Amino acid sequence: MPNISRKGMEMPQSPIRKLVPYAEAAKKKGRKVYHLNIGQPDIKTPQVALDAIKNTNITILEYSHSAGFESYRNKLAASYQKIGLPIATEDIIVTTGGSEALLFALGSTMDAGDEIIIPEPFYANYNGFAVSSGVKVVPVVSGIENGFALPPISDFEKLITNKTKAILICNPGNPTGYLYSKEEIQQLASLVQKHDLFLIADEVYREFVYDNEQHYSIMNIAGIENHAIMIDSVSKRYSMCGARIGCIVSKNKEVMTAALKFAQARLSPPTYEQIASEAALDTPKSYFDEVIEEYKERRDVLVRELHKIEGVTVAVPKGAFYCIAKLPVNNADDFAQWLLESFELNNETVMVAPAAGFYSTPNIGLSEVRIAYVLKKEDLVKSCEILKAALIEYKALS
Amino acid sequence: MPNISRKGMEMPQSPIRKLVPYAEAAKKKGRKVYHLNIGQPDIKTPQVALDAIKNTNITILEYSHSAGFESYRNKLAASYQKIGLPIATEDIIVTTGGSEALLFALGSTMDAGDEIIIPEPFYANYNGFAVSSGVKVVPVVSGIENGFALPPISDFEKLITNKTKAILICNPGNPTGYLYSKEEIQQLASLVQKHDLFLIADEVYREFVYDNEQHYSIMNIAGIENHAIMIDSVSKRYSMCGARIGCIVSKNKEVMTAALKFAQARLSPPTYEQIASEAALDTPKSYFDEVIEEYKERRDVLVRELHKIEGVTVAVPKGAFYCIAKLPVNNADDFAQWLLESFELNNETVMVAPAAGFYSTPNIGLSEVRIAYVLKKEDLVKSCEILKAALIEYKALS
Repeated sequence: MPNISRKGMEMPQSPIRKLVPYAEAAKKKGRKVYHLNIGQPDIKTPQVALDAIKNTNITILEYSHSAGFESYRNKLAASYQKIGLPIATEDIIVTTGGSEALLFALGSTMDAGDEIIIPEPFYANYNGFAVSSGVKVVPVVSGIENGFALPPISDFEKLITNKTKAILICNPGNPTGYLYSKEEIQQLASLVQKHDLFLIADEVYREFVYDNEQHYSIMNIAGIENHAIMIDSVSKRYSMCGARIGCIVSKNKEVMTAALKFAQARLSPPTYEQIASEAALDTPKSYFDEVIEEYKERRDVLVRELHKIEGVTVAVPKGAFYCIAKLPVNNADDFAQWLLESFELNNETVMVAPAAGFYSTPNIGLSEVRIAYVLKKEDLVKSCEILKAALIEYKALS
Repeated sequence: MPNISRKGMEMPQSPIRKLVPYAEAAKKKGRKVYHLNIGQPDIKTPQVALDAIKNTNITILEYSHSAGFESYRNKLAASYQKIGLPIATEDIIVTTGGSEALLFALGSTMDAGDEIIIPEPFYANYNGFAVSSGVKVVPVVSGIENGFALPPISDFEKLITNKTKAILICNPGNPTGYLYSKEEIQQLASLVQKHDLFLIADEVYREFVYDNEQHYSIMNIAGIENHAIMIDSVSKRYSMCGARIGCIVSKNKEVMTAALKFAQARLSPPTYEQIASEAALDTPKSYFDEVIEEYKERRDVLVRELHKIEGVTVAVPKGAFYCIAKLPVNNADDFAQWLLESFELNNETVMVAPAAGFYSTPNIGLSEVRIAYVLKKEDLVKSCEILKAALIEYKALS
């Protein structure tokens, strides 16, 4: 029997994958499980996007352009310009989700053995894209004590070698909810200019920013046009995770030429979902106002309720819809499993994502969990009540 | 300015990419261009697939399972069983096109520097997937003189090194139209067993087989269950190229576990097109009967008309909808450009794909072109008249 690849063996599993069978078993026992672990919003997709698909009269479902429909790219460029980002149609390649945009970004800039510095904790699938691209992730630690702010630039500089090709950030951050300030983004810009690196920014949560804070894009900074690569997606913006439509954006012509070759090899992004994504650009502002207000309220409820639990520390998120909470347990992985396997309050329990899976450095973040506030407020309140009772019982057990 | 990756520089362009501006220029001059160069069928997508999308009432466009909808995988497994392929639901992961299935197959079985043997001429994007996976393509030459039959097994064995991990075939073949016989497939099976290699078969043209020939799948062979990886796609089968739905199929559990990790990293295949692909499995047999009869007639017309042209040799295709023709020119690339730039017959011309781009070995196939018979019969007749006149004029010029 032939051996599979080392790559195939090294590909990481999702941090919650191990817990899925326990959640299924709990449900089979008739237990209600509140899913604080997932990033699948319960928000409705804009009707204008769904209608566009219904109203499409395709007779031959043909390939689209490898860079995506030109009409979509034009409209997308205009929508970026409207929010102050100087992005032209030719700076955009439509991808199959933000996932593929990240793969194209890594493929276009990095070879096997090259290094990418990423502030941790970070979106766990970055590890998967790195392994499949043969790239080494070099983590730089950010901590809950200052809300996962950008680590000092000197920490980055200590990690730069002749293999370092890029720095990757997620802004606002999954799993931290941290929103980088203009000053932090400018510090990163100076750093990549000084060391001639790429700066890749995953900005898929751009709209989800609270407390009148402003999102500051890497595409806003003059002088790093040849360094900056923005990753975007319709998944969270329009609650269209299943569309698998994203894009890679850069003003660096060499990067875009390479990315287009990767795009041509896989032929095209899906047609129907491009139609929906193009139509989604006409989503009324009221939709976002409502959605963002809803998330802000959910965040406030979650943080308030978590603060009521003894021993819990929470980094108040300024964006996206996740937060990291530090629990009074030694191993959040064991605790998360116990919650599903052995605990119930009125036949209900919660599922959380152990945060260790979002760190690349071993043995840090062991007491932390990621909580996604994609549930209704009353469910968030209930979830925190369950968590509180569970922590008391768990403490008594140990 | 940071350097892009070597990978990004090495990624090949499509063999016809260079010709596209010339085709556009010809059209701007008001010239009609018959596209013999493309694999985009003009056949209608089955109504049952299109209707399924129209009739779907999605309110939240959610992620699907990373391996694809279970209902789709079940129905797909049943459809394979119906044609005698012993494939179970768990042997299938739904992918974003056959393209992604190939990437997952390479990623799961091969590491950077590993080698894959492919009979050439082969589908040009295999080069792109190999470069992006860091894998080296080792071509084994097949020739027009015997219709691109499988090269002798001894030719494969000469190329096997300790880096060789897999053999990749396309059956029936793009660009050759060659259909491997049962005996040829069995020879390959013995070979991969003997040398402990994977056998990856791109079988996306399975239905397109003429002259009462039978397609013989690698999934039909007992004893190579742990070696065989089948690549499939709805693109050509249902004229749904824009759906970007395919699958990777294997009974090797390690391969499927690795492939699922790649699938999880990119989250899921597109939702709407999975719905269409599931519904397409109910396409009535009459649809295929008509389509295949149509392609058979087109092939017959094309071969008959090509035979009328002095100096043209054609390998009569037994499947798919391509053939390779050898023209009485030294460089088909120059000739193809000249056809678009300088030739016209009644203000019409043709675009062909120079076959050199389908060979990995330099300087072979220079006189050959790939012709896709995806046009109406009368257009194929006209195209051959144009080609005939062009070859006479081109000869006179040189």
